[in-house]
Amino acid sequence: MLLSLLLVAASNDDAACAAGRPIRWGIMGSGLISSDFVGALKALPADEAKVIAVGARSLEAAQAFATSLGVPKAHAGYEALANDPDVDVVYVGTVAQTHADCARIALAAGKPVLVEKPLAMNGEEAAELVALAKSRGLFLLEGMWTRFFPAVVKARELLEAGAIGEVVAVSADFGWPADPDGEHGRTVDPVSGGVGMDVAMYPVAHVLLAAGATPPASVVATGSTRPAAGGGRVDWSVAAGLSGFGDRPALSATVLCTLDASTPEEVVYTGKKGTLRLHRPAHTPSRLTLSIAEGREASTDETLEFALPPVPAGALPFNYPGSQGFVYEAAAVNRALREGRLEAEEWTHAESVTTQRIVDQLRSSVVRAGGGKREARGRWWDLRTWGWRARREGATE
Amino acid sequence: MLLSLLLVAASNDDAACAAGRPIRWGIMGSGLISSDFVGALKALPADEAKVIAVGARSLEAAQAFATSLGVPKAHAGYEALANDPDVDVVYVGTVAQTHADCARIALAAGKPVLVEKPLAMNGEEAAELVALAKSRGLFLLEGMWTRFFPAVVKARELLEAGAIGEVVAVSADFGWPADPDGEHGRTVDPVSGGVGMDVAMYPVAHVLLAAGATPPASVVATGSTRPAAGGGRVDWSVAAGLSGFGDRPALSATVLCTLDASTPEEVVYTGKKGTLRLHRPAHTPSRLTLSIAEGREASTDETLEFALPPVPAGALPFNYPGSQGFVYEAAAVNRALREGRLEAEEWTHAESVTTQRIVDQLRSSVVRAGGGKREARGRWWDLRTWGWRARREGATE
Repeated sequence: MLLSLLLVAASNDDAACAAGRPIRWGIMGSGLISSDFVGALKALPADEAKVIAVGARSLEAAQAFATSLGVPKAHAGYEALANDPDVDVVYVGTVAQTHADCARIALAAGKPVLVEKPLAMNGEEAAELVALAKSRGLFLLEGMWTRFFPAVVKARELLEAGAIGEVVAVSADFGWPADPDGEHGRTVDPVSGGVGMDVAMYPVAHVLLAAGATPPASVVATGSTRPAAGGGRVDWSVAAGLSGFGDRPALSATVLCTLDASTPEEVVYTGKKGTLRLHRPAHTPSRLTLSIAEGREASTDETLEFALPPVPAGALPFNYPGSQGFVYEAAAVNRALREGRLEAEEWTHAESVTTQRIVDQLRSSVVRAGGGKREARGRWWDLRTWGWRARREGATE
Repeated sequence: MLLSLLLVAASNDDAACAAGRPIRWGIMGSGLISSDFVGALKALPADEAKVIAVGARSLEAAQAFATSLGVPKAHAGYEALANDPDVDVVYVGTVAQTHADCARIALAAGKPVLVEKPLAMNGEEAAELVALAKSRGLFLLEGMWTRFFPAVVKARELLEAGAIGEVVAVSADFGWPADPDGEHGRTVDPVSGGVGMDVAMYPVAHVLLAAGATPPASVVATGSTRPAAGGGRVDWSVAAGLSGFGDRPALSATVLCTLDASTPEEVVYTGKKGTLRLHRPAHTPSRLTLSIAEGREASTDETLEFALPPVPAGALPFNYPGSQGFVYEAAAVNRALREGRLEAEEWTHAESVTTQRIVDQLRSSVVRAGGGKREARGRWWDLRTWGWRARREGATE
């Protein structure tokens, strides 16, 4: 235990003292999202950040990734990556079911960690992970990259400055056409699949930008379901209402998601003075419109553009649209580490946990409304066997 | 009973045989909405329609209305208007609590009737009214004027032609800033007040345009409440999800309404091939955009304009924005009467009843979520005493 604390202190010092040298990233997972993240990171100055290692399930996969993206070191397994003494901070880009376990491995090695969404498989596990990071004095961030985009930073400024007055309504949507029988098989995974785990955190996070991180008193949801792989049902679309937000009792919000088609993917904040719209695609936004009401019919509109940076040299073709925007999140992690902070103010631990808890409610409401139940909630992906295992000891439903 | 049937037959014949002479409208109620409706009707050719009488609670009110809008006859009371043998069809523009009773008076006099929204105070009463009109063989239409706007007629055509493919999501909103302590006191009326009765039928109707009139299996709602006049609470904002639409099981929809501020008031239909957007203000729309997806990021967009007609000469300044659009609804009533139809295909009896039933669910869910109950549901407005009376006999909650 003493050794562990010393390691933690050493790691934090490393990061805090890294001014003058680049922060050295280690990547867990050699899949599509890791490739995009590493590509985007190349936009940062070489004296600010560099990717120095990747760890994957197999050495071969790590080596192939390292070669194609110019990463110096390849490790077999996630522990090896986490324990690499040259790694300052770990990015977890593995498949969703393994996110929490990979984060635990990084934290156990005394490393700050950025974990792709979702942070965990439910709100309870997300809260446990946050508590673990806090107890170890280590930085933890769920990769809600949207919050770090300049358009969203500007939206937050405008909302907080009262540009549209008291916010009383938020509507947000996100839908895309998944092929559950083909390349998007993950969408019917009984634990990590469904529209809630896939995309609902985005519109929920947009709601929380105005509503704050206190869980709403009321979350109602309905929708449609599809058969999960291996039995049970997953939530396939969700139409939800949220209200009762702490000190914002007048605020009501809707969230609409589907895996059947591309929705407009917009967010509209309605305040007593006007509206603020994050335009499509709202999870990687580059444009927002501020409309100040001039009577009931007319408004004065101003559209603000925040063009995304170009794709950096050395990046592979991106697998997901707008992935160059990962650079905003990565830069924010660097800043937090250099300043010795344990969470990012743009996306706090409380927001991660509240969002995951809301997603839990969406999922269970929709699946219940669909006449099914999420039978697989007691199962977890095992990093060691790369297969399902029973829910770990000590956790309660 | 025989007399009654003969009167009905005579009335229908009158309407059906009215080709070659204008259809003669009688107006119940001399308030703001009646003024707008009569003004808008002046856009129809004189040989097609004319307003020949108005009836109000007092002769004085009716005479003042008649004088200011050039209506030939003024009646004291609604029965007198309904029984005027020169009246072919009755428009009910009284306060909301009296709509159903006024419609019954018109039907009892053997007159076809166009009733302002809401048709009744709940779905059950709406269904009773529909049954009454059918049993008497008389035309009945709830004044969901939006459905008759050219932009909505075009939207229906596009949806039915499959322009955006199978519709899998609909989002619709409507909010405006009411002053419950001032001119909008009706919004806290315990029977007819609240956001559900005030505006929610509009977004619900937009959902049904894609979903059909079969009631959805699942309606969930939350929101905020305000004190009702004289006790209890009314629904003040609502965030709702709807799903389980008959033969459209994949469709999910959200409805977001508030009386706290002007929302964008848009409707977006998402189909598997693209989206269709009814632009602000969606309850009197003049513009829609059809976007056909070209991959996940790009789309081909086409915006269609349907300018509203100018305000006719002889109309008073309109009290509600876009009121010249009443002409579309009035012309449709004329067509239905000339063709001997008992309902308008643009807004069917089934749609009226389903919408009102959904609104019932929204209202009770929100007020329940707000910790209140709609204590006044057993009270009704009495046309004779112009005051509250106990719920009429024979009706069940």
